[in-house]
Amino acid sequence: MASRVCAASRPGKLWLRETKQKLSQILKCSPVEIIFNSGASEGNNTVLKSVWNEIGQVRSEFMISQVEHPSVIKTADYLESLGAVIKRIPVSQDGQIDMQFIKDNLSFKTALVSVMFANNETGTIFPIAEISQLAHASGALMHSDCVQMLGKSSVDFASLQLDYGTFSAHKYYSLKGTGFTFVKKGSPWVPLIHGGGQERARRGGTENILGIATLGIVLENFSEANKKIPEIARLRDLMENIILQKAKEVFITAAASPRLSNTSNMIISGVDGETLLMSLDLKGFSVSTGAACSSGNPEPSPVLLNMGLTRAQAQNSLRVSLGINTTESNIRDFTTTLLAVIEKLRSLNEINKEEKYDAVK
Amino acid sequence: MASRVCAASRPGKLWLRETKQKLSQILKCSPVEIIFNSGASEGNNTVLKSVWNEIGQVRSEFMISQVEHPSVIKTADYLESLGAVIKRIPVSQDGQIDMQFIKDNLSFKTALVSVMFANNETGTIFPIAEISQLAHASGALMHSDCVQMLGKSSVDFASLQLDYGTFSAHKYYSLKGTGFTFVKKGSPWVPLIHGGGQERARRGGTENILGIATLGIVLENFSEANKKIPEIARLRDLMENIILQKAKEVFITAAASPRLSNTSNMIISGVDGETLLMSLDLKGFSVSTGAACSSGNPEPSPVLLNMGLTRAQAQNSLRVSLGINTTESNIRDFTTTLLAVIEKLRSLNEINKEEKYDAVK
Repeated sequence: MASRVCAASRPGKLWLRETKQKLSQILKCSPVEIIFNSGASEGNNTVLKSVWNEIGQVRSEFMISQVEHPSVIKTADYLESLGAVIKRIPVSQDGQIDMQFIKDNLSFKTALVSVMFANNETGTIFPIAEISQLAHASGALMHSDCVQMLGKSSVDFASLQLDYGTFSAHKYYSLKGTGFTFVKKGSPWVPLIHGGGQERARRGGTENILGIATLGIVLENFSEANKKIPEIARLRDLMENIILQKAKEVFITAAASPRLSNTSNMIISGVDGETLLMSLDLKGFSVSTGAACSSGNPEPSPVLLNMGLTRAQAQNSLRVSLGINTTESNIRDFTTTLLAVIEKLRSLNEINKEEKYDAVK
Repeated sequence: MASRVCAASRPGKLWLRETKQKLSQILKCSPVEIIFNSGASEGNNTVLKSVWNEIGQVRSEFMISQVEHPSVIKTADYLESLGAVIKRIPVSQDGQIDMQFIKDNLSFKTALVSVMFANNETGTIFPIAEISQLAHASGALMHSDCVQMLGKSSVDFASLQLDYGTFSAHKYYSLKGTGFTFVKKGSPWVPLIHGGGQERARRGGTENILGIATLGIVLENFSEANKKIPEIARLRDLMENIILQKAKEVFITAAASPRLSNTSNMIISGVDGETLLMSLDLKGFSVSTGAACSSGNPEPSPVLLNMGLTRAQAQNSLRVSLGINTTESNIRDFTTTLLAVIEKLRSLNEINKEEKYDAVK
């Protein structure tokens, strides 16, 4: 005798409470300031739309960086179609966000500033605490898409002084389809999903208990895993140094900026990112180009283009993410393979060029 | 080397496509008319809000039944706060929806009629095809919350002639946190979650691949499982007959209406539903009261109250759901236990009454 059963659902609620308790310790907040949802895309939509719906008539301006995730960019576009004014903060080729633009554009009309903790494609970390301070001084609310934070940076979440922070479980070794949002007590909130009393009536819908329980189990190792962050950064740097030493015409995007420990975005001249990705995949290495995976879109990465890279550079980009279990031996195998593949693809390019030259002669 | 990886995500997309293919065969629609999401609460919110945002300025009236799920009722309340006119269709104590009310209130101002396929608490099936016809004749769109349909009724989805149909995977032997919505080609649609290109940019967010894959695997058995529907109905009727024969002052809610095969809602005089639920739980039977489980709310069921039952009757309600694996032997064990528990609780009530009487004497 199955279906919506009160007694049998108690253990589910216990999992939910335990995971929330662990998250509140990690984020140093109250458990009631955490709302479970389906992921950061839902979180980002809810934050921007809540602010627009609650205070848009008084403060109609939103400030977002030009390198946000599509769930922020497209939501801002949508709010713009409803009458919001969107100010888009430039990010330079070396990964710096334009702080002067923020200062110049903040006013009593600014409702929300939304800047991601770190960019997902380049790994650059933005000065969120500083931006929060500026936003709050203007009476604006502050949001940060923090999906790239946990396990990849030792920054203390509470030090960011956010009104809203959005997270996805699958960005921390957990299942896809689960996420959570930090909402500082008293911040504007309109449920995106109206419905049952779940999450204190702030997010309707039967909770993804399996996803939430899995996250809770994974988080038991959080402190231990965080100790590996400096080692992951060391391995990433080792990888980049080997490649820079042995391959010509490679540069690391925003290498001089503060970056996440695990992310490396390389521009490899004369080598198409997609072709490189497929070649590495055949050798057993899963990497990514800068381009938007989610849609299977072969277009070059809007993030890199918005940072001022050329179309050709963006098409030559490769993104490598290290994980908690990556070893030095993995890195040495990977760099050896990558260097060989680069050499092969470049020499094929040369042959192609010569053939084309012969053909037109 | 983990993170957003193009190559490694290909198998996930394959699962997604396969599950969608199976659903399109079951619903007799095109795969592109199906959108995956986090569940029917999200689906219901997206449908109502889409219609309001797209055509609310031209047609501002919504018609919903008084016994809808909270994700429809609360969303309608929210739209009402934004200026929509909500017409709430009465449902009688015997489970009949007021067709005359629908006819009287449909007009060129009606944007959407939203009536659930069957009520989750009583199992009553509503005449959706007939209501669709009326709605369409007025130029209104038609939505049905179909979470109670799959596996519990043999009605052909296509015969309902819907513009929108919403479903939850966990209502069909799958995981919580996954759902899907049928959207007839050309129907108004505004993404609730703007973001990446997932689901043809109609629902952003990384897909819950595990939930979708699980649903696909479970659906392989769909036709076979559907053959059991008449047997489930027979067992449900057997259960009700035994109880009605052997216990006094019990009635079955909406017994004379068309009902789902698996649901039974009983009003058992003099027995508190919550106490009954806990007693049965101790004996290993998971049942439900009519009350809203999701919020742990001890209030009597709004559905039963809206159908015209008294508060006392609603508090004496018990909901029993049979499943695909329920056997006649389960039913005989359950009825024996239930009858014994009813007798015990009623005799305790009598003792309590006598003690109170003695105390005031």
